[in-house]
Parts: sequence; structure tokens; C-alpha cells
Amino acid sequence: MVPPMTGTDRTSFGESPLQAAQPVVILVNPQMGENIGAAARAMLNCGLCHLRLVNPRDGWPNARADAMSSGALGLMPPVEVFATLEEALADCQSIYATTARARDLVKPVMTARSAASAMTQDIQDGQKVAILFGAERAGLSNDEVAHAHTLITIPLNPGFSSLNLGQSVLLVTYEWSHHVFSAPEKIMPTGKSEIATAAQFENFFGRLEGELEKARFFRVAEMKDIIARNIRSIFMRAQPTDQEINTLHGIITALTGVRDKE
Amino acid sequence: MVPPMTGTDRTSFGESPLQAAQPVVILVNPQMGENIGAAARAMLNCGLCHLRLVNPRDGWPNARADAMSSGALGLMPPVEVFATLEEALADCQSIYATTARARDLVKPVMTARSAASAMTQDIQDGQKVAILFGAERAGLSNDEVAHAHTLITIPLNPGFSSLNLGQSVLLVTYEWSHHVFSAPEKIMPTGKSEIATAAQFENFFGRLEGELEKARFFRVAEMKDIIARNIRSIFMRAQPTDQEINTLHGIITALTGVRDKE
Repeated sequence: MVPPMTGTDRTSFGESPLQAAQPVVILVNPQMGENIGAAARAMLNCGLCHLRLVNPRDGWPNARADAMSSGALGLMPPVEVFATLEEALADCQSIYATTARARDLVKPVMTARSAASAMTQDIQDGQKVAILFGAERAGLSNDEVAHAHTLITIPLNPGFSSLNLGQSVLLVTYEWSHHVFSAPEKIMPTGKSEIATAAQFENFFGRLEGELEKARFFRVAEMKDIIARNIRSIFMRAQPTDQEINTLHGIITALTGVRDKE
Repeated sequence: MVPPMTGTDRTSFGESPLQAAQPVVILVNPQMGENIGAAARAMLNCGLCHLRLVNPRDGWPNARADAMSSGALGLMPPVEVFATLEEALADCQSIYATTARARDLVKPVMTARSAASAMTQDIQDGQKVAILFGAERAGLSNDEVAHAHTLITIPLNPGFSSLNLGQSVLLVTYEWSHHVFSAPEKIMPTGKSEIATAAQFENFFGRLEGELEKARFFRVAEMKDIIARNIRSIFMRAQPTDQEINTLHGIITALTGVRDKE
């Protein structure tokens, strides 16, 4: 969802990492406004907000770019437009170029993932970082690539590797986002209940075992321990919450209620 | 670039990893053909070719999807269309669902990166893996998410995290691509020349030092070693190729030629 935009909030992102130093994205000779907008959206998704354009074909501002950005352009500082790549790069110190093809240039090549780590280090070292993306069809020319210190490549299907401009910006900036944002990896997305304690679990499982015993579920006495252990394993694997333990108790009550009424 | 498509080559990708078991992508209730096409393109970029649709709004096939896929749909096995999610999932064993919002469901949550590793393991264990993506605006419903074993989340700017369908598919499948494809990380993109040997480097550097000595560059004798070491450091850092060493020799020849003619 696009957060509401207010007139006084153009450069505020509500998240302190975004106010820290971050790479500048430079689109060189971009053609379609739609692609500039998609690039801006991808950038802001990934926490980047400084966009520069070199010689955009259809000028700037661009209504199609605004529409495709899903509000991102309105939330970012104003886009800076330059006539030449040299001007756009003038204040940059560590320059990365995305390029799909091997070039007759001897430069370090990094994956987008490694490049994001390197950029983080550059920024910690106080450097201003730029990432160059070329025009839609042709990409960056050799002359443009020559301005970069490092080339970025993306591991993709070699039989079908062409990305559009917005997709390229998304993948490169996504790798950056891993250094700024984290996502929870846990079993409890809501926080409304907690994983049951062992005591809660045992209370449930003991009751289940007792009811199964009553129902003569364990027909062969020698097998009982093994079968009980296997059933325990099913419920352990599910790692139920305290609420779910209550639900499981309710299931036992309901099922034994049916039996007890028979 | 889109590789040429031939009639007999529809399921051949020229790359053996693509013939191995891989996750199935399932789009649930997709609306716009453009988004289905963008998803297919992203999948094939990342080496996935099995696409299933549940109840696509505009039916199937879809000319807009074909156009947006940049040829990917023509190179993939035929898309499978199902009326219900249950049918689409029938043969699947390990089911991942992408969802932007925390849900009232207690399920493991993984980042796209961790999920790709987990899927690789599932497949090594012989399981059939599915990745669910919801409809454009609403995403997956709680009922749909309930069919998944694991939820996938993507670390993005919490203030601006909405992705379109094609972008979501791209980021999740991109993480998969890291387990299938590699990209070179090296300083020699072309392979036409090699990093110079230490002997080639010393031959150049000794000549440079000698010429600088002749030119009285090292004015203060006590400083000579430090200055020479600093100059060595510049050229060491550049790690020149054998061809570049020749070029540097040429530069010395040219510059000293000017001097020697004066």
C-alpha cells in the first residue's frame, strides 16, 4: 500500500535507515517514462530515494513516470536531471555499472549481491556511491561503462536473461535493501498467542493418550510406546500455540463426547 | 535478448539445471494478462518454467500475457489452468505462500532468501514444491494462505513495500535462481588477456622508476623509497593485464620520447 503523501513530508520516510547515506541511482538516456516510474517505485520499495536522470528522451517531469511510480516519485526528493553522464557523476566516488554483456574492459565484476555488500562498505568509508543503468534496449555503451569502477552482473538463466529497466533496478536495489531492512523469520506472525509450554503440551498429550487408551486404540501392548511416540511426534512437529492446545483439548472433548453418548 | 524459438524446442532450455525438478509457480485469481506475462518472463529469467493459473479473470490463453512475456510463454511448457486452488495444488507436497501482511495464522515465516534454500532442500528430498501468489490488489485470502506450509516475506522499506505481481514473482524466483545459476565474479570479463605476472609488473615498474630517477622526479633522496612505494601501490591496485602493461610501457616511451626530443 502506498502511504499517504503530505506536502510537508516529501523527504520523510518514517524510517531512520532511509535518512542515512545511500547509493544514488542514475538512469542514463532512459526512454520511456513508464520505466523511470517503475525504477522509482522499485528504489523506494528498497529504501533508496536519490534518482538522477541523464538526458531522458521525453524530458522531465513525465506524467507516465509519475503514474507508474505508484506514488514513489512524490515521496522521494526531487529527481535531478543532467545533460551528461560526467555531470551526473561529478560528486560520486564509487561507481557501479549494471551491464548484461561482457565488455572489452578490464574491470572487477561483482554479482548484485556482492556489490550491495561492497556499497555498504563504501558508504561506511564515507564514499558517495552511484549505480548506473543504461537505456532500455542498448544498455550502457562502452564509453559509459568506462566511467564505472565496478561492473554488476545478475545470476540469471543464460538462455533467457534480458530484464527490463524496472526489473534490473528492482533486483540491484533489492540486494541493497537486505543491508537496510530485515524481515521477521518466525512462526508467530500475529503475536496474539504464544507457542505452548512443554507443560501445556504434556497436559494435552497425556489426556489424548489416556483417551486413546480408554478407546482401546493401542491394541498390541508391546507396540503402545512406539505408536504413542509417533503420535507425539506429529503434534510436536506442529509446535502448537497455547490457543491451539485449547483447540485440541476441545477436539478431544467433542470426539469423546460423541463416543460417550453412544 | 530472447533466444530464437523453434517449434520443436518448446521445452528445451539449453541448460540442464532447467530440466531438473523445480518449484511450480501458481498465480491465484490473476486479473491482468500483462501481470501473468510479466510473471512468466520473470520466472524464465530465473530458470523456472512451470506456471499454473487458478481461475484467471480473463481466461486463457491471453494475448496481453503473451506480449508482456517477451517470448517466455512460448518457451515454457504450456501453462496449466485450474478452476480451484485445491486442484492446482493436488500433486504438491511443500507449499509456500507469498503474503505482504501478517495473518491470523500460525505458520513459519521465511524471507524469500531462506525460502529458496528451503525449497532446494525440499526438492533434494524428492518433494514437489509450489509457490503461491495472490491476485493483484488483494493478495492471497486467509483461506488461500491456509493451504500453505510456509509464508514468504520480503525485506523491503516498511513505509513503501507494495510490489506488483510481476515484481513479487521476480524477487522470489530471483532467490531461486541463485541456487541454479552462477555469475562470474572476476576482473577479466573478456578473457582476451590475462593479469600480468609479477615479473611483467616489475619489468614495467623498474623501468618507470628508472625513468623517474633520470628525470629527477625524486628530489629528496630520503623520500625516494616512500614515494616509489606509493607509486607502486597505485599500479598494484590497478592489477594491470599483460596488455595493459604493454600500454603502460608505450606511455613511458611516448612521454620520455617527448622529453628526449626536447
